[in-house]
Amino acid sequence: MGKVMFGLSVSLDGFIADKNDDVSLLFAWFASAWERFYEVAGDPLNECGAVIMGRRSFDMIDSENGWVFPDGTAPDWPVIVLQSQARASVKKGKTQFHFVTDGIQSAMTKAKELAGEKNVALHGASSVQQALKAGLLDEFHLNIAPVLLGEGVRLFDHLGSEPIQLERTRTLETPGATHLSFRVVK
Amino acid sequence: MGKVMFGLSVSLDGFIADKNDDVSLLFAWFASAWERFYEVAGDPLNECGAVIMGRRSFDMIDSENGWVFPDGTAPDWPVIVLQSQARASVKKGKTQFHFVTDGIQSAMTKAKELAGEKNVALHGASSVQQALKAGLLDEFHLNIAPVLLGEGVRLFDHLGSEPIQLERTRTLETPGATHLSFRVVK
Repeated sequence: MGKVMFGLSVSLDGFIADKNDDVSLLFAWFASAWERFYEVAGDPLNECGAVIMGRRSFDMIDSENGWVFPDGTAPDWPVIVLQSQARASVKKGKTQFHFVTDGIQSAMTKAKELAGEKNVALHGASSVQQALKAGLLDEFHLNIAPVLLGEGVRLFDHLGSEPIQLERTRTLETPGATHLSFRVVK
Repeated sequence: MGKVMFGLSVSLDGFIADKNDDVSLLFAWFASAWERFYEVAGDPLNECGAVIMGRRSFDMIDSENGWVFPDGTAPDWPVIVLQSQARASVKKGKTQFHFVTDGIQSAMTKAKELAGEKNVALHGASSVQQALKAGLLDEFHLNIAPVLLGEGVRLFDHLGSEPIQLERTRTLETPGATHLSFRVVK
């Protein structure tokens, strides 16, 4: 069975976007380093079978073209959106969005069904935080950009006060970022 | 002339102590890895000529024995304490403490005089934050422990919303931590 994971680019002070939801400083590394990065890390997109995201991430997806990556490609993974209001599934662009109102555990069950043997990926800070608190996250990959943003969307927040032990599984340098991978110790 | 720097152990979510000021989870790496760490990183303590710390850090130093490290050694660097109330210099243990009430710039001038050709080291989150905001920090070293604390004393906080660009200068793995060094781009 696949893993529950996420891969995100983050500032050294822990933000995945600045206060205006701009991520350009966090992805500056990608243009010059993606070949080397994929060579070592593999292409995690190929191993993804379904995605869980929060309502805020869903709202940021363009309603006409759906979910399109900066390089122009569009993912066709099914997406589970965690939100408070019930809503019928909808297709935007290549992506089928399903809406779950009864929490991360229920969203995970549905995502795992849809993902089959592949991984469930978490997208955005809220889904990461909910999965971590519920003990549902297996591993994650951070691309740490050499910048302090000061303000923005904090990745590790609202986790409570119980320490979560990790095991570092990989360290990789590219010219513009430091890539650290961790397994959550359960 | 020496540099303005700091070296701190931090959780992956950016805390230098938990909510009870306990740092044991952040220094778990040290027992098994300090030999290898010093072999590669050098002993930054030898290059230190003076220290700046905030009032909170000063209050945590034992009043009878002064500043004593976990291994029992005591530093003899002069320390500048940033605080709001004027106070005469005092010696505690091996350490001479001076008190500065007119801010980080004034503390830095005094610390550099005392340090001579050696480095000025910042101790604690408050002095780091004040030096970063004032553009006075040259470089820093983080020992990132593989743990999420959730709550505690946050290292990079109150920095404002202006991005601070960094350059990574070193990546080092020891069994229990990832050691990243950065230069502040000015």
